Amino acid sequence: MSFITFEGPEGAGKSTQIKRLAAKLENAGRDVVLTREPGGAPEAEALRALLLDKDRSWSPTAEALLMNAARDAHVRARITPALDAGKTVLCDRFSDSTIAYQVGVDEAFLRALQTAVVPRMPDLTLLFDLPVEVGLARAEARGAADRFEAKGEAYHRTVRERFIAIAAEEPERVVIIDAEASMDTVEKAVTEAVNARLPGLLGEPHGHPPAP
Amino acid sequence: MSFITFEGPEGAGKSTQIKRLAAKLENAGRDVVLTREPGGAPEAEALRALLLDKDRSWSPTAEALLMNAARDAHVRARITPALDAGKTVLCDRFSDSTIAYQVGVDEAFLRALQTAVVPRMPDLTLLFDLPVEVGLARAEARGAADRFEAKGEAYHRTVRERFIAIAAEEPERVVIIDAEASMDTVEKAVTEAVNARLPGLLGEPHGHPPAP
Repeated sequence: MSFITFEGPEGAGKSTQIKRLAAKLENAGRDVVLTREPGGAPEAEALRALLLDKDRSWSPTAEALLMNAARDAHVRARITPALDAGKTVLCDRFSDSTIAYQVGVDEAFLRALQTAVVPRMPDLTLLFDLPVEVGLARAEARGAADRFEAKGEAYHRTVRERFIAIAAEEPERVVIIDAEASMDTVEKAVTEAVNARLPGLLGEPHGHPPAP
Repeated sequence: MSFITFEGPEGAGKSTQIKRLAAKLENAGRDVVLTREPGGAPEAEALRALLLDKDRSWSPTAEALLMNAARDAHVRARITPALDAGKTVLCDRFSDSTIAYQVGVDEAFLRALQTAVVPRMPDLTLLFDLPVEVGLARAEARGAADRFEAKGEAYHRTVRERFIAIAAEEPERVVIIDAEASMDTVEKAVTEAVNARLPGLLGEPHGHPPAP
């Protein structure tokens, strides 16, 4: 019945870490649903295909509307039923991504969209933070630099700032994870954040003797 | 450079009258663009297909978001360029339909969506008004009664009330047309409304001697 989201730029290591956390939760006996946005439900996947279709041209406003329509379908078909059934839901990107990435759309309007489609915000959001230059270097190493560069470094700087602003506004929900560190160090930070914010979810912490 | 929308229920005769008005405007030398919603641009038609797909299940909120995303694409790709080029745009359904039909979605939210995607409201909206029973009888005659009845008479009553409320709020934009009358009577009412609200658009009115 816990809802955890992973946010941050491409290349920050979210998909590796979400799988590691899912495995740990399953070891602790949790029933885990691993999902992602945009997508995660048939209606949402159909919109994802339209959004990612290079022959289509959507304005930033239309993108925000489609992302939220997809989220509405995902929440209703998948996230809410899973949480109601007592499962733990891990979601790769959620509403914070729309707020961070839809630069150029009025932020109050973006928040009104979020309010309209998100009945329950995540219990914990892990924000994978990375300097823009590091993200660009990782994209180059992957051969995905063109797509990264297409949007421009200034855009990615703005996205990073908007994610950090969300973390500053909602410190009780969002934990910033230093995604520049090694995978194992990041994994440790994720585990610590989950234990601190959702104690007991991963079972008893290891390596600490019980209190006397 | 005039933007005229046709609103009202199915079976009210909008598509017949929009074609008749288009022909008259062309006779008067106007360059006319005849379009419709949802649709009217490739992105919008793709969303129309998703919205009308019976295998898809959209919540009223998601429908409102998709309708507005389609409208955004339609306005940018078709309506605004046509108006900027001095054309007369006739559109079968526009933003009032979303406000009237998306019963169950917060009306202030629906208006915020309209504000976000509609840079210019129509110069004239012709609201084809019809008693719900008459609409149902016409639907039966067409063999389309099942679809009409599926939503329930109470729903269609609410839609009619919401259209009339929009006309009451914006009398300078919206003219109510009695769509129960014969096609020729309705055509006359449409012509009168256009001449009264957009004088000169149809050329000099016929049948009236010039002022002495």
